[in-house]
Amino acid sequence: MAETSASPTLLLKDELDIVIPTIRNLDFLEMWRPFFQPYHLIIVQDGDPSKIIKVPGGFDYEIYNRNDINRILGPKASCISFKDSACRCFGYLVSKKKYIFTIDDDCFVAKDPSGKEINALQQHIKNLLAPSTPFVFNTLYDPYREGTDFVRGYPFSLREGVPTAVSHGLWLNIPDYDAPTQLVKPLEKNTRFVDAVMTIPKGTLFPMCGMNLAFNRELIGPAMYFGLMGDGQPIGRYDDMWAGWCTKVVCDHMGWGVKTGLPYIWHSKASNPFVNLKKEYKGIYWQEELIPFFQSAILPKDCTTVQKCYIELSKQVRAKLGKVDEYFIKLADAMVTWVEAWDELNQTGKSIEVPNGSAK
Amino acid sequence: MAETSASPTLLLKDELDIVIPTIRNLDFLEMWRPFFQPYHLIIVQDGDPSKIIKVPGGFDYEIYNRNDINRILGPKASCISFKDSACRCFGYLVSKKKYIFTIDDDCFVAKDPSGKEINALQQHIKNLLAPSTPFVFNTLYDPYREGTDFVRGYPFSLREGVPTAVSHGLWLNIPDYDAPTQLVKPLEKNTRFVDAVMTIPKGTLFPMCGMNLAFNRELIGPAMYFGLMGDGQPIGRYDDMWAGWCTKVVCDHMGWGVKTGLPYIWHSKASNPFVNLKKEYKGIYWQEELIPFFQSAILPKDCTTVQKCYIELSKQVRAKLGKVDEYFIKLADAMVTWVEAWDELNQTGKSIEVPNGSAK
Repeated sequence: MAETSASPTLLLKDELDIVIPTIRNLDFLEMWRPFFQPYHLIIVQDGDPSKIIKVPGGFDYEIYNRNDINRILGPKASCISFKDSACRCFGYLVSKKKYIFTIDDDCFVAKDPSGKEINALQQHIKNLLAPSTPFVFNTLYDPYREGTDFVRGYPFSLREGVPTAVSHGLWLNIPDYDAPTQLVKPLEKNTRFVDAVMTIPKGTLFPMCGMNLAFNRELIGPAMYFGLMGDGQPIGRYDDMWAGWCTKVVCDHMGWGVKTGLPYIWHSKASNPFVNLKKEYKGIYWQEELIPFFQSAILPKDCTTVQKCYIELSKQVRAKLGKVDEYFIKLADAMVTWVEAWDELNQTGKSIEVPNGSAK
Repeated sequence: MAETSASPTLLLKDELDIVIPTIRNLDFLEMWRPFFQPYHLIIVQDGDPSKIIKVPGGFDYEIYNRNDINRILGPKASCISFKDSACRCFGYLVSKKKYIFTIDDDCFVAKDPSGKEINALQQHIKNLLAPSTPFVFNTLYDPYREGTDFVRGYPFSLREGVPTAVSHGLWLNIPDYDAPTQLVKPLEKNTRFVDAVMTIPKGTLFPMCGMNLAFNRELIGPAMYFGLMGDGQPIGRYDDMWAGWCTKVVCDHMGWGVKTGLPYIWHSKASNPFVNLKKEYKGIYWQEELIPFFQSAILPKDCTTVQKCYIELSKQVRAKLGKVDEYFIKLADAMVTWVEAWDELNQTGKSIEVPNGSAK
């Protein structure tokens, strides 16, 4: 059952960090208090490090600004973006928990059609703890949800499912549109509550938005890199897309699932479409080459860990996308730096090994 | 917008046939009268041909029993199943229309969450007339629906979509479960109205149920064969599954889309799980080999029409599934007979040619 209860759940309280990138005071947390207060927050402060970010009382948090990032990572800090919400992935790096939920500071608690406040975090946890079904599409959606199951014709050998690595949530009110669509439809709001969670099939890419996202850090963390965006880079607003394409290819190879659908959050305010257009325009052009690249990317069988997959992917990025623009050479280097930083900060963590990649 | 209006639509009135397989009087049509009456019905009478099937007054219909099928098809009638709802595909064969909607006679008008009666046919027509998006998953579902669009990160080159060949609708009340699931969960009802239509991604199979199904006959008709089931066959209740696997592989090759989701119908009564188990048990076993077969089936580039695709598929069925059971040799023969019958009865119809199959 999709839970919409306003009562806080303590599920995974000691196993999940909430990562929030921000440049402002975190007043938005007041609304999330009943749901987030039991959890630990990792706040990644973007922009001017001398600015003081106010966090409402009663929350358990740690906060990192650019000076902290530079101090902790040294020269490897070059892989963490500045002046772009891509900086959030630093929070994934320093977390020691098994699960991450990341949310933007302009996202509020949404209500379901009955008027109940939606506990987005609780739904993400349910999504992550239940298996995924990437090999055949189940027409009644998530077969593990109460009141539903696999339909006639679904192979029994696939009904155990596979581990879920990513849970991608959606947005009521302001939809996650690109600048051209924002400009053409400035007033469009998403008012449709679609009461479903589904696995994105193996071999299929999707645009992963970082606004309302959870993942199993122990499984897919080393591939959840948000790239080089913002200050000094030719592109912005493609940080989550990049992470989504990379993680989907790695999950497909490793035999793990990616879900999308519930939970919804309330996205309060559209960002400026003119500013967005400036950040996006190269991405809009490049994505026409990036999608076919990721659609045809094949990871060899000896890529048995996410780290190995990601290093291999960085090589393919350099070799194939380097021809599209020299930016991708820099990005390929940063992907390697990211994995090195990950391994440095996560030496005690176990690396999940999947022999010969996915079974399928 | 998903239409739930009770007012009849005359959309495609002269371009769509409603195909109904049955063994009983069609009293269920009374409830559908506001929606179906303007359309032509093709009733395929299964079982005893001497039985008189009563059709409520005011409907425009033609009816075919087994004697008619034998007379019209001669020796080719062997490809049409007897004592199984698979016989419905005879209706697709004799139709002269561009679109088909097929529905079971135990399916009634469902209501949306607001209590409005759902015009299932109208929603299918919307699904078929709007493009599909099989190459990348759109997280806000059908991007052509009013109030939604493609999300950030969706390649602009893919936003035109591709023609839609199939629209697969769902069921409230009794879900379409196999016999084992029926036995384990005898009381489970589907009460969840998921307000979405989505394209099943390219390369992904799904269990296609024939209870509430529409398709573009001009595009995919020659592959919409429901196989050999029922009387004299070792298997039943896999007719729609077989058609779904075959059509999905052909649609993927031809570059056409398959949608699932809305509309819902109200499925009134579960069939007997013990009877179903007898019909299904070989299918439950065989489907473990059928799914990998269809997942890895590749149609060569010179298959530029559905007929050519389907003949090629029949050869692969014979060569690969013939080893699983000799039934599949018979089925492969019947697939060829079906295409011959199709071409015989549809000589004036145009055959859609797609050079080199799909562009993707």
